[in-house]
Amino acid sequence: MTDAMTTRRMANAIRALSMDAVEKAQSGHPGMPMGMADVATVLFTKILKYDATDPHWIDRDRFILSAGHGSMLLYSILHLTGSKEMTIDQLKRFRQVGSKTPGHPERGHTESIETTTGPLGAGISNSVGLALAERILAAEYPTIIDHRTFALCSDGDLMEGISQEAIAIAGHYKLNKLVFLYDDNGISIDGHTTLSDSVDQVARFKACGWNAVHVDGHDADAVEAAIKATEGSDKPTLIACKTTIGFGAPKKAGTEKAHGSPLGAEEIEGARKALGWEYPPFVIPDDIKHAWEEAGARGSGRRKEWETRYAALDAAVREDFERRLKGELPTSFAPAMAAYKAKLYAEPKEMATRKAGEAALTVVKGELPELVSGSADLTPSNNTLTKNMKVITPDDYAGSFMHWGIREHGMCGAINGMAIHGGILPVGSTFLVFSDYCRPPLRLAALMKIRVIQVFTHDSIGVGEDGPTHQPVEQIAALRAIPNLNVFRPCDTIETAEAWEVAVASLKRPSILALTRQNLPQLRLKDAGENLTAKGAYEIAPAEGVAAVSLFASGSEVSLAVEAKKALDAAGLPTRVVSVPCFDLFADQPGSYRAEVIGTAPVKIAVEAAIRMGWDSIIGSDGGFVGMSSFGESGPYKEVYETFGITPDTVVKLAHSMHASAA
Amino acid sequence: MTDAMTTRRMANAIRALSMDAVEKAQSGHPGMPMGMADVATVLFTKILKYDATDPHWIDRDRFILSAGHGSMLLYSILHLTGSKEMTIDQLKRFRQVGSKTPGHPERGHTESIETTTGPLGAGISNSVGLALAERILAAEYPTIIDHRTFALCSDGDLMEGISQEAIAIAGHYKLNKLVFLYDDNGISIDGHTTLSDSVDQVARFKACGWNAVHVDGHDADAVEAAIKATEGSDKPTLIACKTTIGFGAPKKAGTEKAHGSPLGAEEIEGARKALGWEYPPFVIPDDIKHAWEEAGARGSGRRKEWETRYAALDAAVREDFERRLKGELPTSFAPAMAAYKAKLYAEPKEMATRKAGEAALTVVKGELPELVSGSADLTPSNNTLTKNMKVITPDDYAGSFMHWGIREHGMCGAINGMAIHGGILPVGSTFLVFSDYCRPPLRLAALMKIRVIQVFTHDSIGVGEDGPTHQPVEQIAALRAIPNLNVFRPCDTIETAEAWEVAVASLKRPSILALTRQNLPQLRLKDAGENLTAKGAYEIAPAEGVAAVSLFASGSEVSLAVEAKKALDAAGLPTRVVSVPCFDLFADQPGSYRAEVIGTAPVKIAVEAAIRMGWDSIIGSDGGFVGMSSFGESGPYKEVYETFGITPDTVVKLAHSMHASAA
Repeated sequence: MTDAMTTRRMANAIRALSMDAVEKAQSGHPGMPMGMADVATVLFTKILKYDATDPHWIDRDRFILSAGHGSMLLYSILHLTGSKEMTIDQLKRFRQVGSKTPGHPERGHTESIETTTGPLGAGISNSVGLALAERILAAEYPTIIDHRTFALCSDGDLMEGISQEAIAIAGHYKLNKLVFLYDDNGISIDGHTTLSDSVDQVARFKACGWNAVHVDGHDADAVEAAIKATEGSDKPTLIACKTTIGFGAPKKAGTEKAHGSPLGAEEIEGARKALGWEYPPFVIPDDIKHAWEEAGARGSGRRKEWETRYAALDAAVREDFERRLKGELPTSFAPAMAAYKAKLYAEPKEMATRKAGEAALTVVKGELPELVSGSADLTPSNNTLTKNMKVITPDDYAGSFMHWGIREHGMCGAINGMAIHGGILPVGSTFLVFSDYCRPPLRLAALMKIRVIQVFTHDSIGVGEDGPTHQPVEQIAALRAIPNLNVFRPCDTIETAEAWEVAVASLKRPSILALTRQNLPQLRLKDAGENLTAKGAYEIAPAEGVAAVSLFASGSEVSLAVEAKKALDAAGLPTRVVSVPCFDLFADQPGSYRAEVIGTAPVKIAVEAAIRMGWDSIIGSDGGFVGMSSFGESGPYKEVYETFGITPDTVVKLAHSMHASAA
Repeated sequence: MTDAMTTRRMANAIRALSMDAVEKAQSGHPGMPMGMADVATVLFTKILKYDATDPHWIDRDRFILSAGHGSMLLYSILHLTGSKEMTIDQLKRFRQVGSKTPGHPERGHTESIETTTGPLGAGISNSVGLALAERILAAEYPTIIDHRTFALCSDGDLMEGISQEAIAIAGHYKLNKLVFLYDDNGISIDGHTTLSDSVDQVARFKACGWNAVHVDGHDADAVEAAIKATEGSDKPTLIACKTTIGFGAPKKAGTEKAHGSPLGAEEIEGARKALGWEYPPFVIPDDIKHAWEEAGARGSGRRKEWETRYAALDAAVREDFERRLKGELPTSFAPAMAAYKAKLYAEPKEMATRKAGEAALTVVKGELPELVSGSADLTPSNNTLTKNMKVITPDDYAGSFMHWGIREHGMCGAINGMAIHGGILPVGSTFLVFSDYCRPPLRLAALMKIRVIQVFTHDSIGVGEDGPTHQPVEQIAALRAIPNLNVFRPCDTIETAEAWEVAVASLKRPSILALTRQNLPQLRLKDAGENLTAKGAYEIAPAEGVAAVSLFASGSEVSLAVEAKKALDAAGLPTRVVSVPCFDLFADQPGSYRAEVIGTAPVKIAVEAAIRMGWDSIIGSDGGFVGMSSFGESGPYKEVYETFGITPDTVVKLAHSMHASAA
């Protein structure tokens, strides 16, 4: 049998497994795996550097299935190359509760899945981060990091706006080891892509600093040649693979009918005939299975060579590299943070939490070489470029700060990719209101349980003159709504430092730091002996005697609540103040702690320069609230606070009135 | 004085007002207005069809300041061309609370502001919708609709991913009356754009089906020629205007220092000298003011000609056109909806609310010719292409359905533009989980108080096999968090119809319809004589006797609650069920109605296949909740509901246990 014939039969194994699994599930997308089977076979059998027996090898080439709906392509290949976990039984349980084969590939749930995809554009933006991480690490570890990143993407991936941000970043930073294999099948759910699209993708990618070529995606030799031609390139490359969706299906191939539904028994029978695939469902002949397993083991020699090089590294370098891969903090980290906080206790500082964030980040970065910061073109406002960072440029990756451009979504997608690569702790930054641009990757980071940190400054109407378009009102609640995501809104220098401490130690949960533009006093003046922010909420100012009023606040409103407390205490209403820097962590506390912090004062009032949603879980639906219920307004920030009545005086009046009613 | 000299002096008036206003506010962005003053002067004095005395003339050319931070450009021009509202005093009150000159231009707040901009990319996506609306209306009203749309955009606008979606839509639909004036100044907040960008924008736009040219943005004749060359084009056009940011400022021009901060007294003095502008702050010499006012009145003749053509229309056509502009519903609308609901009462239907939505939309569309629907490539799933719609194509705009491609963000941005154009009621659709891609335009629609409707189907873990990436869990809460946005989650065919009724009548508030993939029984079986969904929440099933248990639910979980009620009633716990189709409208109800609906049953439980956030406002922090607290899982939807315990049985058990504790 010729090589080409073997490749086609190996590809047909993917096709058969994909259509059979979708048919059995009566749900799924057979068209893409059948269309891209030839390209994927070439990639996995002739190009990709990997060792199926060691899916965690750090120097493997990365394969990202950005068109995640075609998950059966990946599951089929994992099964065929010998993944222990991906048994034939798992393929039969495609899209069933508890299986390793969910509808879309999920990192952390299934071994060898590099990233969770499905929401279009996510995978390609991750792939940019993976390729960037490789370049950054290669600059530091030239003998052990040298691999490529391949992303399989669809028309949908390239129509999504995020694609432009990702492509522009990759082109600018000359990520020459990044290759997009574009499934140019001309079909989307609504029908032919000509219904809604006329973009010349090859020309578009060239305009963005990429190589870009067309190839027949069913001509294995041509595909192989096209991919091999990318080696040694000085740019990333798009290979537009002209394919037939549902290749082999006699009636549905080349149409949207092959895209997202089972083909049906008749069509599958026809496809088996057309492909010359005479085996029953889920049966792979030994020779094909064997050929695939050989392909899966192809990289073991290169991996062993790599291990030799790795072993040759200085022991301390190796140890630190392993620490970085595990996400552990160096032993010097805790003392450095303690020393920083001791200085703050000794000399309290009134400053914006964005500035406090910068000071803390400087200490964090000093201890964590793996930290790579960046901003979506708000560097001087976000304060995330510290003095001990060097800017990464297309000509020098040996740095730790990225100018992402005005690309919040692309930044967050790439940052997810950097985190999943391993060896890097990525930090992004923009204004809090622009978190709206970033929700898809923020959600995916939470779903993947990865450690990424976003610094979102200008966190309320405290933005002032920029007005309602730039004043977050609902963003804090909307972010708190995302499961498995810590949203910190620290009230001063100390809480900001504590938030950083928790964020870097949260290996399974992304974190957001919402920081102010405006100055705030330091409220925490002596060492509590523990990280209070880690509890999510705590009493920051006790009542004198039995509390008549409990005030709850976060961020910039904690000092406002403390002002109100003074007036209430003076007026004979003993008042306590609870700082709530992180709802999510407070929700994780034992019921007894929660009850103690919430307390039993008859009057409960929350203060936050944002909407009420979420606060009722603490103050109850009958609690008082001083905050926002509309969009903001343009003006100097103190006047804007006055305009919306977010002042100590409003709190005091409300407390008196609630106290009177309760009495 | 030569024409070129006059143009430059007129442009200098913009420059002077902009730098003076920013200086007085000690806040704002002088650089863009100073850089683009020449281009804007050419546009407003020689090209744009408008009549400053009638800013609402429907056939005016539209000018969109997508780079909204340069708001002083627009405010200056409004003042100079004679806007009554935009007095010199307003310019002096730039960025002050209550002024007509907020930091970023706000539609509805200030006259003649076409759209609210600031979040980058928003304006250009709106402009695509405006240009599309013009084409659609021109197909229907050829004698009265014929105008162009000009958008001034920045590097940031073109870096944002939304730009790609907008550009691709415009290119595909051949929006030949759309022109982008790109302020190619090479500067962003972080510094020179070469820090983060290498895209050849002209080549990129060409790849997307646009004309694209370079021009010197300070050469008025060249700018005029470039814009005039776009007349009669068969494509949209990008004019990349090479400009110097902060043009005139001796030291800061051409640098990021001119971008977002006051120039300072010394630099302003230097700029006055360099520009030959000898007048004090906020003083415009009479000849220049006069020239600008003449320019503002340039279009009055054309407007009068237009009025003649308008008067020549058939009276009935004119009347309906005016109705459409006002957003009023035709008198036939209410009876048609009533007849549709009567049919449902007569023959109750078990169906998915996405199907019920399609049925209602068919009726709505039958009465509202101005309704233009569309989907971001999920047409067969969203059920928003009804039989009485015709697809809009690049060759035939006389239709009412848009294939937006896989461009959720671009769709929502364009839809905002269609709504603000007037004469069209735009409806978009995608999966609810992908509302995450659309939050910036959803927020802006709410801020602008415009009537747009989004149909977001597949609204919970009921999505089933597609798994957690496609199952919304936090999206409903996150959307409810946006002020001035109605989020409907109807429970059956009747509530779906009612939601449509409220949505189309909400002229000042956008609406979202969250609809199910899976079938639901019809719960509402007789005419209540009023639209109950409009109240936000109501008792859908009363208790037999004094209620021991109140169950609150929305959408697909209302029927689940009704099932639980049966079991609880049978077990001797009289139970009532409250349907909560719209939190926002319920919040608007009088306290007495809210209290009555919430009721006094000692056990309160909410059921929603989503996170708890928001429900505490109804059930209190001590209420019971059956829903989600994590991401979902891939599997057949009934099994997924079982997996997360969102079942009548769970509700029943929780009610019993809470009842026992309360007793």
